[in-house]
Amino acid sequence: MRKLCLILFIFCSFFALAQKQDYPIQPVAFTNVKLTDHFWTSRIETNRTVTIPASFARCESTGRVKNFQMAAERKGKFCTTYPFDDTDIYKTIEGASYSLALHPDKKLDAYVDSMITIVGKAQEADGYLYTARTIDPLHVGDWLGTERWVKEQENSHELYNAGHMYEGAVAHFMATGKRNFLNIAIKNADLLVRTFGPGKRHVAPGHEVVEMGLVKMYRVTGKKEYLALAKFFIEERGHKEYNKKSKNPYENGVYWQDDKPVVDQDEAEGHAVRAMYLYSGMADVAALTGDKEFLTAIDKIWNNMVGKKMYVQGSIGAVGDGERFGANYELPNATAYNETCAAIGNVFWNERMFLLHGESKYIDVLEKTLYNGLISGVGLDGKSFFYTNAMQIQDGFNHPDIERERAGWFTCSCCPTNVVRLMPSIPGYIYAQNGNDVFVNLFISGTGNLKVNNKGLQITQQNNYPWDGGLQFTVNPAGSMDMNLKLRIPGWAQNQAVPSDLYSYQTAQNKKVEIKVNGKAVDYIIQNGYAVISKKWKKGDKVEMNLPMDVQRVVANEKLAEDNNKVALQRGPVMYCAEWKDNDGKAANIIIPQNTIFTTAYKPELLNGVTVLTGDVKAVQVDSSGLSISTQNKTLTAIPYYSWANRGKGEMTVWFPQQVKYVELLTK
Amino acid sequence: MRKLCLILFIFCSFFALAQKQDYPIQPVAFTNVKLTDHFWTSRIETNRTVTIPASFARCESTGRVKNFQMAAERKGKFCTTYPFDDTDIYKTIEGASYSLALHPDKKLDAYVDSMITIVGKAQEADGYLYTARTIDPLHVGDWLGTERWVKEQENSHELYNAGHMYEGAVAHFMATGKRNFLNIAIKNADLLVRTFGPGKRHVAPGHEVVEMGLVKMYRVTGKKEYLALAKFFIEERGHKEYNKKSKNPYENGVYWQDDKPVVDQDEAEGHAVRAMYLYSGMADVAALTGDKEFLTAIDKIWNNMVGKKMYVQGSIGAVGDGERFGANYELPNATAYNETCAAIGNVFWNERMFLLHGESKYIDVLEKTLYNGLISGVGLDGKSFFYTNAMQIQDGFNHPDIERERAGWFTCSCCPTNVVRLMPSIPGYIYAQNGNDVFVNLFISGTGNLKVNNKGLQITQQNNYPWDGGLQFTVNPAGSMDMNLKLRIPGWAQNQAVPSDLYSYQTAQNKKVEIKVNGKAVDYIIQNGYAVISKKWKKGDKVEMNLPMDVQRVVANEKLAEDNNKVALQRGPVMYCAEWKDNDGKAANIIIPQNTIFTTAYKPELLNGVTVLTGDVKAVQVDSSGLSISTQNKTLTAIPYYSWANRGKGEMTVWFPQQVKYVELLTK
Repeated sequence: MRKLCLILFIFCSFFALAQKQDYPIQPVAFTNVKLTDHFWTSRIETNRTVTIPASFARCESTGRVKNFQMAAERKGKFCTTYPFDDTDIYKTIEGASYSLALHPDKKLDAYVDSMITIVGKAQEADGYLYTARTIDPLHVGDWLGTERWVKEQENSHELYNAGHMYEGAVAHFMATGKRNFLNIAIKNADLLVRTFGPGKRHVAPGHEVVEMGLVKMYRVTGKKEYLALAKFFIEERGHKEYNKKSKNPYENGVYWQDDKPVVDQDEAEGHAVRAMYLYSGMADVAALTGDKEFLTAIDKIWNNMVGKKMYVQGSIGAVGDGERFGANYELPNATAYNETCAAIGNVFWNERMFLLHGESKYIDVLEKTLYNGLISGVGLDGKSFFYTNAMQIQDGFNHPDIERERAGWFTCSCCPTNVVRLMPSIPGYIYAQNGNDVFVNLFISGTGNLKVNNKGLQITQQNNYPWDGGLQFTVNPAGSMDMNLKLRIPGWAQNQAVPSDLYSYQTAQNKKVEIKVNGKAVDYIIQNGYAVISKKWKKGDKVEMNLPMDVQRVVANEKLAEDNNKVALQRGPVMYCAEWKDNDGKAANIIIPQNTIFTTAYKPELLNGVTVLTGDVKAVQVDSSGLSISTQNKTLTAIPYYSWANRGKGEMTVWFPQQVKYVELLTK
Repeated sequence: MRKLCLILFIFCSFFALAQKQDYPIQPVAFTNVKLTDHFWTSRIETNRTVTIPASFARCESTGRVKNFQMAAERKGKFCTTYPFDDTDIYKTIEGASYSLALHPDKKLDAYVDSMITIVGKAQEADGYLYTARTIDPLHVGDWLGTERWVKEQENSHELYNAGHMYEGAVAHFMATGKRNFLNIAIKNADLLVRTFGPGKRHVAPGHEVVEMGLVKMYRVTGKKEYLALAKFFIEERGHKEYNKKSKNPYENGVYWQDDKPVVDQDEAEGHAVRAMYLYSGMADVAALTGDKEFLTAIDKIWNNMVGKKMYVQGSIGAVGDGERFGANYELPNATAYNETCAAIGNVFWNERMFLLHGESKYIDVLEKTLYNGLISGVGLDGKSFFYTNAMQIQDGFNHPDIERERAGWFTCSCCPTNVVRLMPSIPGYIYAQNGNDVFVNLFISGTGNLKVNNKGLQITQQNNYPWDGGLQFTVNPAGSMDMNLKLRIPGWAQNQAVPSDLYSYQTAQNKKVEIKVNGKAVDYIIQNGYAVISKKWKKGDKVEMNLPMDVQRVVANEKLAEDNNKVALQRGPVMYCAEWKDNDGKAANIIIPQNTIFTTAYKPELLNGVTVLTGDVKAVQVDSSGLSISTQNKTLTAIPYYSWANRGKGEMTVWFPQQVKYVELLTK
């Protein structure tokens, strides 16, 4: 299996080389990286043993599989809620494929094949694959359009389904070498090529993802039409007539990133998941075609998002109504929506921005999202999920849209199946290279196998990240090798909360980042956020980097009025929260005075192993009469944000008052 | 002048008699009632001397008058914001006309005539009158439709303008006997009759009011086509295709009360002002045609509104986005919208419901609205207004849509000009009759002149209502007269907060309502909420009624979660609030324990004379460090809700915690 993969990657690389343009930096594929750490390995293993089987089981029990079976027979009645429920199967196959590449499993392999057979039978003769219509095209109802594609922009998600199918098929092909799913995808993609394009049908896809999918299909098949169609779809946006005066994002087109041509867009807007997939697709097409205008636009959009629309724990998509970005600095805590899928999309996009620009700030955002607002979306049990990721849970508040506890599945279950596919791909985000520049982006124990100028290079990391800042890298080139090792120095280690003025640190790290090569401290230069160590490397060279790990008090730009006079707690890449369980049943009653000193302790038995923070704070208490309110001293215990809601339901908060100005009295 | 009016009323009565159907109960016109009280007389006088001149001045200074002048010349550019700005002039003329009827004023009379001349010149040859189009029909812009009427439902308000024109014209004709404005209105109404109807153009008017206006035109002119057209417009609703699945009231038609035919509607829905004018129009048409289906529908809608969608101080239209009704029990305090116009519309509708059914519960709602959430909309100075009427102003909260202080005028200035016309018409809501049943609905000192069986009957009220419950009525028939005097016993005097289970009283009134006739207590029967005193009346008969005036603790139905464990304070018809000015700069920090005893005191020098409530309560304090919160004893001073925001800007609250469960810490 391993060999097969290698052959496939060489095969794919052939196409990559044949292309004139591509990302200047190339990631080191997850299949070439073997993890030995606890933090991620345990999550990936849980994903393999629990999440993937649970996800397939739910696709079966909820009727998602049955939809395909009915479509194959052209009879019955679509039996789930959304036409895009098809994609849950595609995404679970994608995740299972990544998992198979890392961890061969005949039973799973055979099961996936059986699913692909079911999917294939639902495909119409010309390649169309969309169970909601194929089951009974005459009774689809006007909601999805009585003809193919006519409601694509509004509701139907026909191209969204196609995009996820392509991503699943490419992953399956690359992991297993089998073409059974890929052939289905090619047949469908060829239908799109015949249907859409200049002189043919025009549409701005309602929920983007087909663009990324088509790019992946192009990479695997080399068919330039797929790349051209991806670009066409992107350029279709912004030409429909909307009510420009309206502030309603459904009326003015903003919801779909369709209010103006993408090259004129400069703000992260509309439905956050759609936005992330669009910007990722634009990055792909920009890289592969050399399009400068797409690049200029996504650079501006990135600055806007990171500078004005991202929560302190890396989540995006603040507004529940429309699952969308709000206005600049609209980041409410009590109603934060923060869809898990949007965090995943944000990882996709920032990885691509890094591959385009080679700057560490994109990985800073990626890391912040990954360790906080993304993995908060899946419980430690691997089978309970958050669709939204709250910033504050407070008793006496009633925000019906905000989840207070995890669920096993959702009617719209995009998030769990997105987690399924993201988790096993994480090793692919650690290393990247551009010629003999080798980037180390994430600090996860394990070994990466690279090729530099066709010579093998092994990099082994040993650390206890994210709990400890002591990082060790062993460099093992096949032979003596000139290579520039580029170690990311995280923004937080240099007192930059995110690469913008949205958040900043109230207190500076006590120590500077130190780097030693073979035991000797070196003066290093910093390029684009990376410490560059250039030398002739030989087998067994050891590099040590010490990231300072003081508890950091994060404060928000004063324009973020919601968080005025508040503080958030960070240590390393990990954002903290207070949860009811560790704090006498409450969390929203805590005041952290400016002079609070925190101590840290690693608790191996707690929440699969976490470092907790403790400090002396104030707590506001309401007595049982409901007539007397007072402030008492107490010891705060803070846990990593991602680990909340694994021990039952109750208060949680990320931002703490440092100073209270008023109180609101709640009576229910 | 007085004589002229009398002739005119006889003239109008002729039409009323000629009609087969009408309201079974007829109101005693405001022109037949002379007030001598302080509470309303001072407001009506302020309206006459300050509000009316200020309103005309603002119509001039903001360009509203200029729009008519440009339309007359067919050149220029519409110079205000909304096409319905024309109606501010119509409504001010309406208010000025009522005022002229009560208080002749040659200068004002001449000024109104000059305005009517300007209005008339803007009318097109066929009767069309809509300055936004007539000024320059070729450059109206698609927003208003490039042809007449085509955007009536969405935006143009062409029929809304017509409706207010009719109301203004009828008022002017009835007050002055002059036909100059009425002729303009007739010319316009005839155009509508030629344009709309079965076999002609169809439309559901976007913002209702033309229905009420046409009914008034029918009453004055006797032209049955006007009544038929009003009915046609009402029946046009509910036939457009909307997205029924959508929850967005603009997409599903609910915003315009257009999601289903009016006879199938059973919930108060959509834009609250539009709703009130529609239901009022339905009542009018039901009364005049005997239509039972309209009646059944508005009865259901009324029960829904009063039982699930009305604030404790009588306001309606809870939701700012769309100025509309929310869902059942959606009555948030912090974001309460409560447009002043909606309260005025609610008075119109409840008066009509009373005239249809003769039940006091409608007047209970009318009185609650009138003394609280309606007159809160105009400052004691008569020239500062609220468009919205807040339930709670709290420091540290940021609700940008909620007004914290009054303004002199608004870009959309419907509310001030609605106040202008409502205020002088108040004497018309006091008395009503059905044959020799004479209803006394409101308790305002002064004299009403009625005719019972063609014999004169004078009823004189002497009281200090709403501050005092001792009411005196002197009955002076022209000669000995059989007559049933029906005195409304307010719900609150019998421990019914409103005629529904939405609110109730925590404590009962100590005394029962007592009635004496010529000094002797009588046993009275209660019919439909009225104490009925049937006897042969003679000159100088005296009736006394004592309404208990204990301070009442109002609590909300537990389904109104927002107000769980809270209390509101009422005394007589007046709802109270705490305002910062009387309570050490704060109001949202007050807890009223269940055992608090209130004392009352009339303060003639305060806020044009009000009774204030005081009691021992708790107040939550945040110290200057922002780290310590505590509860202290204090004396609460509560003032009538309607009188808040006349002494600067600060906290105000209507609902008080009786028992706090949690606190929210606010930091800005």
